[in-house]
Amino acid sequence: MKPFLFSGIQPSGEIHIGNYLGAIRNWVKLLDEYDPLFCIVDYHALTQPYDRDLLAQRTFDAALVNIAAGLDPERCRLFVQSHVPAHTELAWVFNTVTPMGDLSRMTQFKEKSQRAESESYINAGLFTYPVLQASDILLYKAQAVPVGEDQIQHIELTREIARKFNARYGETFPEPKQIVPKEGARILGLDGKAKMSKSLNNYVGLLEDSKSVWKKLGPAVTDPARVKRTDPGTPEICNIYSLHKSFSPPEDQQHVAEGCRTAGIGCVDCKKILHKNMMGVLEPIQEKAAALRAQPERVEEVLDRGARDCADLAERTMEEVRDRIGLRARR
Amino acid sequence: MKPFLFSGIQPSGEIHIGNYLGAIRNWVKLLDEYDPLFCIVDYHALTQPYDRDLLAQRTFDAALVNIAAGLDPERCRLFVQSHVPAHTELAWVFNTVTPMGDLSRMTQFKEKSQRAESESYINAGLFTYPVLQASDILLYKAQAVPVGEDQIQHIELTREIARKFNARYGETFPEPKQIVPKEGARILGLDGKAKMSKSLNNYVGLLEDSKSVWKKLGPAVTDPARVKRTDPGTPEICNIYSLHKSFSPPEDQQHVAEGCRTAGIGCVDCKKILHKNMMGVLEPIQEKAAALRAQPERVEEVLDRGARDCADLAERTMEEVRDRIGLRARR
Repeated sequence: MKPFLFSGIQPSGEIHIGNYLGAIRNWVKLLDEYDPLFCIVDYHALTQPYDRDLLAQRTFDAALVNIAAGLDPERCRLFVQSHVPAHTELAWVFNTVTPMGDLSRMTQFKEKSQRAESESYINAGLFTYPVLQASDILLYKAQAVPVGEDQIQHIELTREIARKFNARYGETFPEPKQIVPKEGARILGLDGKAKMSKSLNNYVGLLEDSKSVWKKLGPAVTDPARVKRTDPGTPEICNIYSLHKSFSPPEDQQHVAEGCRTAGIGCVDCKKILHKNMMGVLEPIQEKAAALRAQPERVEEVLDRGARDCADLAERTMEEVRDRIGLRARR
Repeated sequence: MKPFLFSGIQPSGEIHIGNYLGAIRNWVKLLDEYDPLFCIVDYHALTQPYDRDLLAQRTFDAALVNIAAGLDPERCRLFVQSHVPAHTELAWVFNTVTPMGDLSRMTQFKEKSQRAESESYINAGLFTYPVLQASDILLYKAQAVPVGEDQIQHIELTREIARKFNARYGETFPEPKQIVPKEGARILGLDGKAKMSKSLNNYVGLLEDSKSVWKKLGPAVTDPARVKRTDPGTPEICNIYSLHKSFSPPEDQQHVAEGCRTAGIGCVDCKKILHKNMMGVLEPIQEKAAALRAQPERVEEVLDRGARDCADLAERTMEEVRDRIGLRARR
């Protein structure tokens, strides 16, 4: 049996190429090495202001796009967090072994608290978010968790919670390790400044059509040294070149790098090549997505099976946990 | 349909006459007015240091003694909190509408934090304890909650959580009211100083036999003015007299009060009368307890039925809650 890998997917809005390069594409590479569980974390989504009328649709869309982008349902499980309520049950148990001090130190909590528009948004769910995350992972005794840099502290806390539980109640949970992608971890937005994100509107959506993508690539920031067409540039500092590295074949990469350094090609030419290659990656995904959109029951089926399998796995762990902590079993 | 009443029972050790007078006996009076749900809160018990080897037995004993003391299983439901995991699911949802500030202000959290032997005992479960309590109550849309004075702040927070949820997601939960007993709310221990409690060893256990009870009443504190047998006393300041008020018929109360004021009887005589009357209340309870002890399956059956009924009630509320907050329903 292969060890479980766990990863959470936010059900929040459109998925962009930053998500794809930074997460989905790396997960696909892990499908053979691990038994992967992908969880759309709708219960986590409640911790920040959200649109209750869109959450269900976004949950479905997150499943659909992730399947289209490569999460082959034959080789992994995909499920919705709230379909396996044991996540919250184990989170309660973990609350009782997690010192307040540990949670107060979490950088993400501090940042989100500072950004909160109102005191009332700084809620106990935001504070205990990493405890639910630890529960997500340990409920399946997952051994690997692919995450971005910003989540490493939470995975460290997950290990600490596993150790605390094991020390108090006996060896139960393995300590999971994080898998941080070497490349694609931090995809810059088209502004070339900040991480690609929906809220900064510096993104290319995974499902955007060719015309729309070109409209965004056109004004995208390049090496500022290339003021005129005849000014040579430095590909290594150009964000368009870094996107070439993710989307273009080596010969195209070489061609645009040379053309840039020698002013042999202009930025528009370079972007056209990127556009062609990017659409070469996006279009097959978009076709799959359209096919799934036409047969939503295929997505529902995947989520059903995921929920059923994961509820079984979860119940096995919860039986062990309830016994360890000494609860009286239901007859 | 009568409105639900909810009350939590700690699965912690022996039950004493303070619990009986302050809680159980008052509940019994409410059995006709409400549809009562009594919940042995084992998940709450994890928030403080406890003996994992005793928890299951204490959970069972709490059920047994409460039934023996008057919680007629034909007229109420008795169940174990962890047998209805939806308590923790709703608690997660409530975490996300509960500001950190509200929880930080809870007196009980502050007191327990101060008493904690180690920083690591100040855990997130202790902090979010009142949120789980709100979930216990609102999961059943209970409208009445019998509590001691020390829990009023938590019931206020429960109402606040109901209001916050209703304001954000639409009218869902009623605001429960607390029922604080007029008499018996604060039973002093035999030291006449502190509230009766197991940890202070100033208690009479509900299941103690006649001899053991007398051994405790003998040295119990009375009016300090009665140094000699011939010194008259003031019943109103004597803790033994206040116990008479809970256990003795009016004529005995009158007899000992007069005897005390006139030095007509001594403290030992007075205690003998209390002892007789107290055992008159305790012995029928002890007989019922012994009968249940001989047929533990009767208790198990009550807990089974309670868990089944309450899980159904809870699921009904959770379906509504999941819809309100906009989660994608499991197909």
